Amino acid sequence: MAHAESSTFVEGLSKREAYAQVLEQAKALFDGQRNWVCNLSNTASLLYHALHSLPSPSNATNWCGFYVLDPKNPGQLILGPFQGHVACQVIAFGKGVCGTAAQTKVTQVVEDVEKFPGHIACDGASKSEIVVPIIQDGKTVSIIDIDCAQLSGFDTDDQTALEELAKVLAESCDF
Amino acid sequence: MAHAESSTFVEGLSKREAYAQVLEQAKALFDGQRNWVCNLSNTASLLYHALHSLPSPSNATNWCGFYVLDPKNPGQLILGPFQGHVACQVIAFGKGVCGTAAQTKVTQVVEDVEKFPGHIACDGASKSEIVVPIIQDGKTVSIIDIDCAQLSGFDTDDQTALEELAKVLAESCDF
Repeated sequence: MAHAESSTFVEGLSKREAYAQVLEQAKALFDGQRNWVCNLSNTASLLYHALHSLPSPSNATNWCGFYVLDPKNPGQLILGPFQGHVACQVIAFGKGVCGTAAQTKVTQVVEDVEKFPGHIACDGASKSEIVVPIIQDGKTVSIIDIDCAQLSGFDTDDQTALEELAKVLAESCDF
Repeated sequence: MAHAESSTFVEGLSKREAYAQVLEQAKALFDGQRNWVCNLSNTASLLYHALHSLPSPSNATNWCGFYVLDPKNPGQLILGPFQGHVACQVIAFGKGVCGTAAQTKVTQVVEDVEKFPGHIACDGASKSEIVVPIIQDGKTVSIIDIDCAQLSGFDTDDQTALEELAKVLAESCDF
């Protein structure tokens, strides 16, 4: 039985330790459960609460969640489960940070979203962003998207851990 | 374009006014968009932020989201989009507050979850709960589930507004 405490992160963990707990909890939650909506919903919660347990800038995370392939239009992403304020519903492949990660299949770490060509400002509070593609059979099926209300909110530790999480999600979910 | 500000609620609204804003924003978001994951994800955010803009006990909302019919097992609900801590993944029809609402198609307003027979304690912090079924063609397709960390967190104003929202969701989403 999943329990709320699995998304409680003690203060004082390093970022690597917090992400290690996210990965461990995520794998436990996905054991025997491949429904993507269920798994992405709990993963958004794990990530959001992990980042908020950390010092600045991680605790300034203001949006954390997923976009997935739009079943009605494979040329665009559609909003999936998330934690935070209301978000853009659809994003075309190639547009903004999310669309670029989806199209190129390459993680985007953006220190200042205002400097990213074609940035889509769903939330004016967001200053930096990381987007990691989730790839199944060579195709982008979803992206992990995290926004931070501070500049340079994400570093190589975030990238390494989120790319590992994206692999686990690709293996564990039927999209 | 959906924007984060649509889930910003000014302080000082009455509960009825806050819910009226939720309904108005939800209808605007659903205009031209019938994807249920997208729409429930944004609705969970609207509701969570609306309730947190209100005085006690509404601002003690600690979980706000949805369960839907499990496509792999129509006798149970599976976790949908939400805001809050990690939640139980599946709930059998008839079990606990959510399963009872799903099976009976009747809203459950529970002043003290500890006194509800068969209560499923996903989160020990939850003290009271409201669950509203979403009915399409006479069948429960989803439930709205909100938990409060205070006793008696929900009243007839919540029930009336959430039942109206459930109707809007039933009309606006392809589940």
